Amino acid sequence: MPTAGNHHVLPARQGIAVALRAGERLRVTNTHGGQVVDTWALAADDVGEYLSMEHSRTSLTRLVPRLGDGLYSNCRRPLLTLVEDTSPGVHDTLIAACDPERYRQLGAPGSHANCAENFRSALAARGIQADRVPAPLNLFMNIRWREDGQLEFLPSPARAGDYVTLEATIDVIVVLSACPMDLNPINARGPQDVELEVLPATRARTPASPPDTPPGAGTA
Amino acid sequence: MPTAGNHHVLPARQGIAVALRAGERLRVTNTHGGQVVDTWALAADDVGEYLSMEHSRTSLTRLVPRLGDGLYSNCRRPLLTLVEDTSPGVHDTLIAACDPERYRQLGAPGSHANCAENFRSALAARGIQADRVPAPLNLFMNIRWREDGQLEFLPSPARAGDYVTLEATIDVIVVLSACPMDLNPINARGPQDVELEVLPATRARTPASPPDTPPGAGTA
Repeated sequence: MPTAGNHHVLPARQGIAVALRAGERLRVTNTHGGQVVDTWALAADDVGEYLSMEHSRTSLTRLVPRLGDGLYSNCRRPLLTLVEDTSPGVHDTLIAACDPERYRQLGAPGSHANCAENFRSALAARGIQADRVPAPLNLFMNIRWREDGQLEFLPSPARAGDYVTLEATIDVIVVLSACPMDLNPINARGPQDVELEVLPATRARTPASPPDTPPGAGTA
Repeated sequence: MPTAGNHHVLPARQGIAVALRAGERLRVTNTHGGQVVDTWALAADDVGEYLSMEHSRTSLTRLVPRLGDGLYSNCRRPLLTLVEDTSPGVHDTLIAACDPERYRQLGAPGSHANCAENFRSALAARGIQADRVPAPLNLFMNIRWREDGQLEFLPSPARAGDYVTLEATIDVIVVLSACPMDLNPINARGPQDVELEVLPATRARTPASPPDTPPGAGTA
C-alpha cells in the first residue's frame, strides 16, 4: 500500500485503493509505456460522492482534462486536480471499465482479469462495498473521436517513464487498475506494471503556484 | 401516466416515469421545437441495471446513438433501441443531468427545477428510491465537440413536431425530464412541454424490418 514518500509497483492486471489526504499527490508512472490505468476517486467521508466523468466534462466543457484541470464529483466539486502530466496528454473519459461481460463479448475464453472487479476488490479490501462502478478516468487511454462521432480504440501513446500526478483537493480514496485488456490494442505493449508514488502535501503544487498555495485553490 | 395508445403532455420543467413492456415503443415529440429531454431507463425487474452512456458509447463506438442503434445498460445489454428519429439526429451522451448545484454555480437565485430531482421524484412516485442519478441520454441536446476536445453548449436544432421513438428490448422503466435549463441556450425557445405516446408492440418495428421481427433482434 503506497503511503507518503513510498513507491509501489501496481502489477499488470491488478487494482489498488490509495487513501490521500487533502493536498497529497499521487504520481502514476507508466513504467514500460503504453499502459492504460483506469482511475476512480471517492470522497473519504462519503463514498456516495465519487469522481464523475459526466460532471467533469460539464464543468470543464472538455472531453478530456488537461494539466491544471479539476476533476469533479457527482456533487460538482473537484476531488482531484491534474497537477503534472509528462505524457502526450491523451486520456479518456468516454469508455466504461472493462468487466467480465466485456471480455465475453470480445470472445475471451473463460474468466479474465478486469478493471470493474479490480475496483470492487480494491474497495472491499478497505471494507467498502461498491454496488456500482462509476465511469473511470482512463489515464493514458487513446480513444480518438471523429467529427461524425465515431470512436476508435487506439494504442496508448504514453512513453516509458511518462507520469501523471493527481492532487487531492479533499481527503479521497483513489482506486487504480492497471487495465488487463489484451483483446484490443489500447495497451500498446500488452498489460504492464505501473508505479505509484504518494507525494506529501508540503511541496509546491505546480511550478507556477507559490509554495503556500492551499490545496485546490482556484480549482472550484 | 401514458399507457399504450395514449398521448400524454409532459409539461415544461417536469419529469415522469413510464413503464414499457418489451416491444412497446415510446415516442417523444418535441412539440414546440428546441427542447432537450433527459432520458433514463432501468430494467423493470432489477433497477440496479440502468441505461449507461459509457457502456453505450463503448458498444456503439460512437459518441451519439443513431437510428437503429441499441442503447446499452451497465450490464452491456440493450434496454432500448432507437427505432425512429425525425429530428436532425443531434443528441447527447456526455453531459450530466442538471441539479440544484448546477443552477447555483450558474448563478440562479433560489431553488430551480432540475432534471436530477425530476428523475428521483418520478421514480419515488413508483416506489423506487434512486441513490444515484446515472448520466442521461439527452435527447435533442446539441453539445458540439471539437477536434481538440472542447465542448460547446448550443441550442437544440429539433424542429416543432420532430420525434424520437425508443423501443423497449426488455421490460423497462423509462424516466424523462423536460429539461428546465434556462441559464444556457440548450433549450432553444426556453423550457417547453413535450408530448409522449406509448405505441403497442404489435406494429412493425421499422419500415425496413418485417412486421414479425422480434423486439431487439439484431441489436445485441
